[in-house]
Amino acid sequence: MSGKPQKMKARLPRGLVDRSPADIRAVEEMCGRIREVYELYGFEPVETPLIEYTDALGKFLPDQDRPNEGVFSFQDDDEQWLSLRYDLTAPLARHVAENFNDIQLPYRTYRAGWVFRNEKPGPGRFRQFMQFDADTVGAPSVAADAEMAMMMADVMEALGIARGDYVIRVNNRKVLDGVMEAIGLSGAENAGRRLTVLRAIDKLDKFGPEGVKLLLGPGRWDGGREGEGDFTNGAGLDETQAAIIIDFVGKEGFLQEVREGRYRSPLRSENPDRTPVNFEALQAMTREGASELEQIASLVEAAGYGPDRIRIDPSVVRGLEYYTGPVYEAELTAEIPNEKGEIVRFGSVGGGGRYDGLVSRFRGQPVPATGFSIGVSRLATALKNLGKLGQDPVRPPVLVTVMDGDTAAMAKYQQFTQALRAAGIRAEMYQGNWKKFGNQLKYADRRGCPVAVIQGADERDRGEVQVKDLLEGARLSAEIDSNEEWREARVAQVSVPEAELVATVERILKAQARERDGR
Amino acid sequence: MSGKPQKMKARLPRGLVDRSPADIRAVEEMCGRIREVYELYGFEPVETPLIEYTDALGKFLPDQDRPNEGVFSFQDDDEQWLSLRYDLTAPLARHVAENFNDIQLPYRTYRAGWVFRNEKPGPGRFRQFMQFDADTVGAPSVAADAEMAMMMADVMEALGIARGDYVIRVNNRKVLDGVMEAIGLSGAENAGRRLTVLRAIDKLDKFGPEGVKLLLGPGRWDGGREGEGDFTNGAGLDETQAAIIIDFVGKEGFLQEVREGRYRSPLRSENPDRTPVNFEALQAMTREGASELEQIASLVEAAGYGPDRIRIDPSVVRGLEYYTGPVYEAELTAEIPNEKGEIVRFGSVGGGGRYDGLVSRFRGQPVPATGFSIGVSRLATALKNLGKLGQDPVRPPVLVTVMDGDTAAMAKYQQFTQALRAAGIRAEMYQGNWKKFGNQLKYADRRGCPVAVIQGADERDRGEVQVKDLLEGARLSAEIDSNEEWREARVAQVSVPEAELVATVERILKAQARERDGR
Repeated sequence: MSGKPQKMKARLPRGLVDRSPADIRAVEEMCGRIREVYELYGFEPVETPLIEYTDALGKFLPDQDRPNEGVFSFQDDDEQWLSLRYDLTAPLARHVAENFNDIQLPYRTYRAGWVFRNEKPGPGRFRQFMQFDADTVGAPSVAADAEMAMMMADVMEALGIARGDYVIRVNNRKVLDGVMEAIGLSGAENAGRRLTVLRAIDKLDKFGPEGVKLLLGPGRWDGGREGEGDFTNGAGLDETQAAIIIDFVGKEGFLQEVREGRYRSPLRSENPDRTPVNFEALQAMTREGASELEQIASLVEAAGYGPDRIRIDPSVVRGLEYYTGPVYEAELTAEIPNEKGEIVRFGSVGGGGRYDGLVSRFRGQPVPATGFSIGVSRLATALKNLGKLGQDPVRPPVLVTVMDGDTAAMAKYQQFTQALRAAGIRAEMYQGNWKKFGNQLKYADRRGCPVAVIQGADERDRGEVQVKDLLEGARLSAEIDSNEEWREARVAQVSVPEAELVATVERILKAQARERDGR
Repeated sequence: MSGKPQKMKARLPRGLVDRSPADIRAVEEMCGRIREVYELYGFEPVETPLIEYTDALGKFLPDQDRPNEGVFSFQDDDEQWLSLRYDLTAPLARHVAENFNDIQLPYRTYRAGWVFRNEKPGPGRFRQFMQFDADTVGAPSVAADAEMAMMMADVMEALGIARGDYVIRVNNRKVLDGVMEAIGLSGAENAGRRLTVLRAIDKLDKFGPEGVKLLLGPGRWDGGREGEGDFTNGAGLDETQAAIIIDFVGKEGFLQEVREGRYRSPLRSENPDRTPVNFEALQAMTREGASELEQIASLVEAAGYGPDRIRIDPSVVRGLEYYTGPVYEAELTAEIPNEKGEIVRFGSVGGGGRYDGLVSRFRGQPVPATGFSIGVSRLATALKNLGKLGQDPVRPPVLVTVMDGDTAAMAKYQQFTQALRAAGIRAEMYQGNWKKFGNQLKYADRRGCPVAVIQGADERDRGEVQVKDLLEGARLSAEIDSNEEWREARVAQVSVPEAELVATVERILKAQARERDGR
């Protein structure tokens, strides 16, 4: 292969990235803590494959106007279309429907996994990313939604996020559907516009009320001013309709109004004359949704979760079309440095809602379900920036250096390495070209190795081995000016009988750990 | 959506499966133990995405004669071809080449991940499966290969597989290349036949020498007899050539011959007259490979790994084309019940080898590398059948039942559930339709819930709650014949003040644990 004339270019497709040890360890640690909470709540792990039949996934992607845009698809050998999953919810619905007779409802499961979006990648926006979901299928009551909100709150605290630095915001699609119905956006023919409205509201944090108003109306330039950046089409609402939406989602004290029976319509005051707004329909449609929200608020409060943790908030919508009832979102309210080091309100790190229609697509009978997704990478970034992850990193290994390449010497080095490992000490024998000893020490330095083990021919003859404290050595060499001083000092290096190697390394590692802990 | 006329069929594409809680937990436990060994050896986690440019993956799949057959491929929006990775080695080579200037060699990394094969699925043969790899890049010496073999042995023992129940078998492709060169299979024009020979040898365990002879020669019917099953094309070797191959791979005492300088050619005795066999070329080609094997054997023996754990064996080939030197395979020699309960010699659970050409495809300079893959699902099956996994399963949750649906009662049930969870007790509140109480107890039974918590209106008024030991109840009900006896006994159910709920549940769970442990 090396004889081939043209050299291939090593590169990754856009929007895909390799993962570093620090990233993998942080996500592993985080997912472990999330898993503990899910298990405590009685959820069991169940996973689905990454490939599904395209039609089984449905067309529920946000930001996609044409079918199957946004997903990676390919044909099987029998010509049927397959796709990489774009979330973990649609595959779970397929799994439940396929195994319906064997599944004991209510079915409480969780899963972490990669999902794929075939869309334009951007900063922090990848075509492969990880979600960590929990779902309860076969749970008709909003008690299940209340539990989801509490579990999300518990996850946040299990991850070390202080109370007050996060909030779980809860809304109900039925309420919002009522508002949309009232302004004339009902029926299948308006499904596209309703989705555009949902997506617009979802951008409230990002663009503010003025930006959302543009997205609800004529559309918006990405740059904020005409001609700047790409143009996003709007929902085409007139000013009155847009104002009604904005007024509703920005509403303060909604829960209070519901509780006191004062909630009639957030729109009455608008008194629109040009747009036909059906306030009676609005009342009927929203009553059920508002009552569900009231029940959720009572349940979580009774369980000790006050509005500092779980809050009813009409501005939460979630951008996916398949939600049918309560929707909820976990938001970090703390100001956290972002990837660029800017201090920002971090925003949403996960969410979900009730999707009673997803399983019934297959079953032809109603199957209520509710669940949420945590955006793993995004949450891990937040936790790292908060200093809540990776505080106890795996230490780099002890390096057994190679001074001689004959089989007898190599066998010795290998023995030292295995003896250290047998004692539970992370260790490696240098596997590069050993002839340049300087390269070995450079390797140890770059890798952050705490200790180097060295044995030349003289030491081997004496049955001895040198053990070098590389951290102490680095500290000393910063203090020592001349080479003479360095050679005289050498306190960071000891020569011991081979039999004392493991104990000596252990002693140095313990001293280093004490120094790290400031003891 | 439920209004749509036709109902969709919930099904998975062939060769893809959903994963059960038991499977996920077993694999998680197993991967955790493997990871500990890799970390102890100084390896760091590094992962790549599941999608790569097709050309970057190369055409190294076994059992594929046409390019890109065997992989799932699709075009990006810029018309470039993308594929799902079919192993973890080719993507690692791309990663190293792409980041060559930032990577400190030797580069010791590990990763677990899903890989995909677009081929005909069969029993135990899936189109998505998990591998767990470790690789050292930039390690020219066979000391790195020796270390890989030792690490595989350590992994087997960390998983609880007894010494003697596994063996790591090591060979060298250079030796086998010498044999193939000698019988006239050299040059690019014979690459396809060489791969067919490798694949034939790889089947020695499965089909025996006679079957392999057919695969080396004219070909073989899957059913074993003419016309039975599919026909697999052979390598087209004549009888002498095939005999030379079979003789070599079945050779006993190969390492001994090498060590005593007696190893010349395993074929001299054949004295073939019709086939032009170049014994001088054979000698020259195999000398280097044999010497490397001798070094590996010495290194692992010096480190305390005898031939009961790591053994030189000329029959190991590995079915992938990209190996260039030592190859190694982990085999379970214990007789283990398979999926059907038949007692079988389990065979290979992983393997790998040196692939010095994979990175250099991108770099145009030699980059030595060696590594191995563990077949996660296969090994997990073996461990489960050996009783080495899942011995300490997660216990099912305590069930808080629902007797009344008003908000005040629901809030109580929710409080009980959260109080149990706060004490670290896995618990759930029933989320199905609560009106049929029998369904709740059936649910608890099927789920294996250890304890049920029950509170009706009367108990609520008294501030009490019933706690039912479901395991003791099940045991008693097997001993008790009549309903009267049952009602009189009721020892498995106690009524306690609400404040004593958590302590009571804890006491019952502890008693159950003692009974499980036989104390």
